[in-house]
Amino acid sequence: MTTEMSQKPHDRLAAALSDEMAAVSALIRERMSSEHAPRIPEVTAHLVEAGGKRLRPMLTLAAAALCGYDGPYHIHLATTVEFIHTATLLHDDVVDESNQRRGRPTANLLWDNQSSVLVGDYLFARSFQLMTEPGSMRVMQILSNAAATIAEGEVLQLTAAQNLATDESVYLQVVRGKTAALFSAATEVGGVIADAPQEIVTALFDYGDALGISFQIVDDLLDYQGQEDATGKNIGDDFRERKLTLPVIKAVALADDEERAFWTRTIERGKQEDGDLEHAIALLNKHGTLTATQADALAWAQKAKSALAPLPAHDIKDMLIDLADYVVSRIS
Amino acid sequence: MTTEMSQKPHDRLAAALSDEMAAVSALIRERMSSEHAPRIPEVTAHLVEAGGKRLRPMLTLAAAALCGYDGPYHIHLATTVEFIHTATLLHDDVVDESNQRRGRPTANLLWDNQSSVLVGDYLFARSFQLMTEPGSMRVMQILSNAAATIAEGEVLQLTAAQNLATDESVYLQVVRGKTAALFSAATEVGGVIADAPQEIVTALFDYGDALGISFQIVDDLLDYQGQEDATGKNIGDDFRERKLTLPVIKAVALADDEERAFWTRTIERGKQEDGDLEHAIALLNKHGTLTATQADALAWAQKAKSALAPLPAHDIKDMLIDLADYVVSRIS
Repeated sequence: MTTEMSQKPHDRLAAALSDEMAAVSALIRERMSSEHAPRIPEVTAHLVEAGGKRLRPMLTLAAAALCGYDGPYHIHLATTVEFIHTATLLHDDVVDESNQRRGRPTANLLWDNQSSVLVGDYLFARSFQLMTEPGSMRVMQILSNAAATIAEGEVLQLTAAQNLATDESVYLQVVRGKTAALFSAATEVGGVIADAPQEIVTALFDYGDALGISFQIVDDLLDYQGQEDATGKNIGDDFRERKLTLPVIKAVALADDEERAFWTRTIERGKQEDGDLEHAIALLNKHGTLTATQADALAWAQKAKSALAPLPAHDIKDMLIDLADYVVSRIS
Repeated sequence: MTTEMSQKPHDRLAAALSDEMAAVSALIRERMSSEHAPRIPEVTAHLVEAGGKRLRPMLTLAAAALCGYDGPYHIHLATTVEFIHTATLLHDDVVDESNQRRGRPTANLLWDNQSSVLVGDYLFARSFQLMTEPGSMRVMQILSNAAATIAEGEVLQLTAAQNLATDESVYLQVVRGKTAALFSAATEVGGVIADAPQEIVTALFDYGDALGISFQIVDDLLDYQGQEDATGKNIGDDFRERKLTLPVIKAVALADDEERAFWTRTIERGKQEDGDLEHAIALLNKHGTLTATQADALAWAQKAKSALAPLPAHDIKDMLIDLADYVVSRIS
């Protein structure tokens, strides 16, 4: 295995697209500023410098490169995607009353909820300004539809998360909203801006959709069986926050009366005691739902890879395939 | 004076544009719904049924009618404008921790802050979907710029409101952001969608801008000299919330050392005691700043009326002129 192959696939993508990623960084800095309100660049700089992987804009650049795009607008679209993502992070931290993100204090803690809500609104508005610049109606429709789907998924999660009637199809809707909608829009607009044939655009959409779903299922699984790490996320956060995720949904479907009463008390009514998390994990193991959830994540990653079949051979295609494997490598 | 003339100008506009307003209502209902998240129409219905005057969408319809537009898209644009307005109301109530709006409990009180933030995001996204439908790049740029200016103005207000260094030019920037930007975008896109000549579009923009500024100055003035009414707003709310508005900014500029110390204590440091509001009002009267603020509001209303000069004679033009007079009639 060469040194290059041993690198993580998103690092290889970042290296292959380094000029474009630098242009995206420059455009982010330019457009996140505000002539009139100095609080805005303070808050956005805090987030931007927190050093996320910029996976979503990279997907747009990768899709555009795969389709041979040679214009300037993939940079605008990648920046749009990152602004939508950053705006939703700001609002999510208010909604979840979070104190930490990527191992650093959140903006709502460092400033206040007001700043997080309003600076998030500013970034949404900036993203809409940016998405108009390529002058493509189809691109604008894809990205504004994604923004609506994201908000809809988040609202659905508010009401579905603590409701034991939530089944796998509702879970999938929430996951498509909160995660996959932006992944699939990111890859789709990369193809659309390059004027790729519909078959290719559909393949890129399907890849982003399946990758995003797999990504979120892995996240939900790690919440029950991961290692505590630098991300500041602790085992059992979702259980303590009474979020009904796939391992629990599968366990509720297989629960006997006593188990159902346990889930009703801990998730629906939120009355949790010492030892409940351990008992919950024991129930997930008893019904094999952690293994079943892992199988689902792997199946979605496989779907992502298969979706790329219509695309021509290309270094970046190989990296996207490896990326799908990498996403699930944390759980397999 | 005929019965028709004695009606309020926005009621006459609503009557003259009743078919279009009905179409806007229908489109609002259609687009505020959500197939997947029932919480969304619950929250939006609460706001929509609260019976706002729908002044902003009416301005778009009036501008389009004045310019002889005969296509279908003024309805989409008016709905876009109302969705942006409603989204900002939802977020403002979270930011201000308000309990009442239009004499009814706010959404953040009836549901929670989470729902207000996320349903606001949903309406923003819906407004961007709507604004793409006419397929006009210029319209999209005007409306997405307005959304950015609104958010920027709100963030600026967060930091400027309690800072005695805030002068009239910063106040004007805040007011343009929080109020006038949507008024001027509303009138401007009505002209643009009708393909009106640039001189007419500029006139419509200037009317909306000046009307919005006048509207906000009146609001800020009434906070110190209004009557408590059905809107649920009380005399002195801005003072208690330490919001530096025009009457106080003018008084700070004329303050002696003792008065400055009073404003520093009550507004900057927020240490207020019984009798402070009365003392504040006495200072505003001593320096004549309520009268000076009134004069500013009247001057902006006059500017709004003068802006309409390039427009041809039309019933609706007369109503817009009367509307500018009506806005300031509450304080003159």
